[in-house]
Amino acid sequence: MPELTEASPSGLLQYAEVQWFYARQMQQLDLGKAESWAATFTEDAVFDVPTLPEPVTGRTGLVAAVRRARAQLAEAGERHRHVMGMVDVLERSDGALDVRSYTTVYASALGGASRVHRVCVCEDVLVRVDGALRVAHRRVTRDDLP
Amino acid sequence: MPELTEASPSGLLQYAEVQWFYARQMQQLDLGKAESWAATFTEDAVFDVPTLPEPVTGRTGLVAAVRRARAQLAEAGERHRHVMGMVDVLERSDGALDVRSYTTVYASALGGASRVHRVCVCEDVLVRVDGALRVAHRRVTRDDLP
Amino acid sequence: MPELTEASPSGLLQYAEVQWFYARQMQQLDLGKAESWAATFTEDAVFDVPTLPEPVTGRTGLVAAVRRARAQLAEAGERHRHVMGMVDVLERSDGALDVRSYTTVYASALGGASRVHRVCVCEDVLVRVDGALRVAHRRVTRDDLP
Repeated sequence: MPELTEASPSGLLQYAEVQWFYARQMQQLDLGKAESWAATFTEDAVFDVPTLPEPVTGRTGLVAAVRRARAQLAEAGERHRHVMGMVDVLERSDGALDVRSYTTVYASALGGASRVHRVCVCEDVLVRVDGALRVAHRRVTRDDLP
Repeated sequence: MPELTEASPSGLLQYAEVQWFYARQMQQLDLGKAESWAATFTEDAVFDVPTLPEPVTGRTGLVAAVRRARAQLAEAGERHRHVMGMVDVLERSDGALDVRSYTTVYASALGGASRVHRVCVCEDVLVRVDGALRVAHRRVTRDDLP
Repeated sequence: MPELTEASPSGLLQYAEVQWFYARQMQQLDLGKAESWAATFTEDAVFDVPTLPEPVTGRTGLVAAVRRARAQLAEAGERHRHVMGMVDVLERSDGALDVRSYTTVYASALGGASRVHRVCVCEDVLVRVDGALRVAHRRVTRDDLP
């Protein structure tokens, strides 16, 4: 694993960009902006998360997954927030970024208490499409699952 | 909403500055440094949070709000930490920054357990005063309130 | 305390570097990579945390502390994640960095629930060794301890 010593100014600027990218992406998810959120993935992105029975490929499936999750939250009378932290970035020789981070999901019952819902590890491959960062592959694992 | 693609190096540096600004501001709050914390707001800042019956305007009210909260914490035998995350920044044409982020408040009972106390959304307007970032307007909403 | 106004572009880049450093360091800890994690400290680092009866000096003790913690987690059937936030940095005249931040530790029982385990304040002194950031001194305090 390369030392961060080797991080150039452009690498450090990109680190800030990656953080910003995720901040916006997570907010879009929690606001239920399904299409905007799906547009932060590549057209043929693979989305592999524990809440789905099998990996989803492509934006149509991503939009459907968000809508389903929103409906379940509304029924449960809860709000969820996805907070990403400890973002580590490794750049490949072709410029793609391997990003490993933690995602904590907080749940709040309307009129009730807030709590930690899930603690997850998120492993992404980010690529640039027309200059913009996009998730090409996401694999999420839950800490509570053996 | 503009693409982050358009983020210039100076925009990315400013993103790091905003994160740093909030890190220091939240620590000042949790340390009970009421005046230092209030000084991170503009003289006529509006502070609109669920724990206050109505919005506070100006630093005198901000200082009083911190002192009141400190007294309540001492009485309850608890420590609070405000952790901001998922900071998204949109720059207006006049240079003011619309910042939307999440704030998780953790509570620890002295000699007891730690827990999530509140999950909030924080919407700030940041401006520069003599070059330094200052909060001109803050509106906080709690996820557990309908 | 100097104003962030005074933060130069190089100071802001260093702020991103510090965040990145901690993201990787915390992941190494949670992955049980004891040697890699210990290598992020100086050879004679002092590590003063509430879980140890007295401060540890040097990497051998750091490696042993991680291995002991891993064994306890395995026995308890839990996973821990260390998430650092609200990182504030003050640079000394000799270039060493005083970094104060919060560390939240999340625990997940395999097959059970996730929760906040600890909320801590982490006070580090970072120095550069051959250009790379290293922790020369760490002092951690727990919010739940009086």
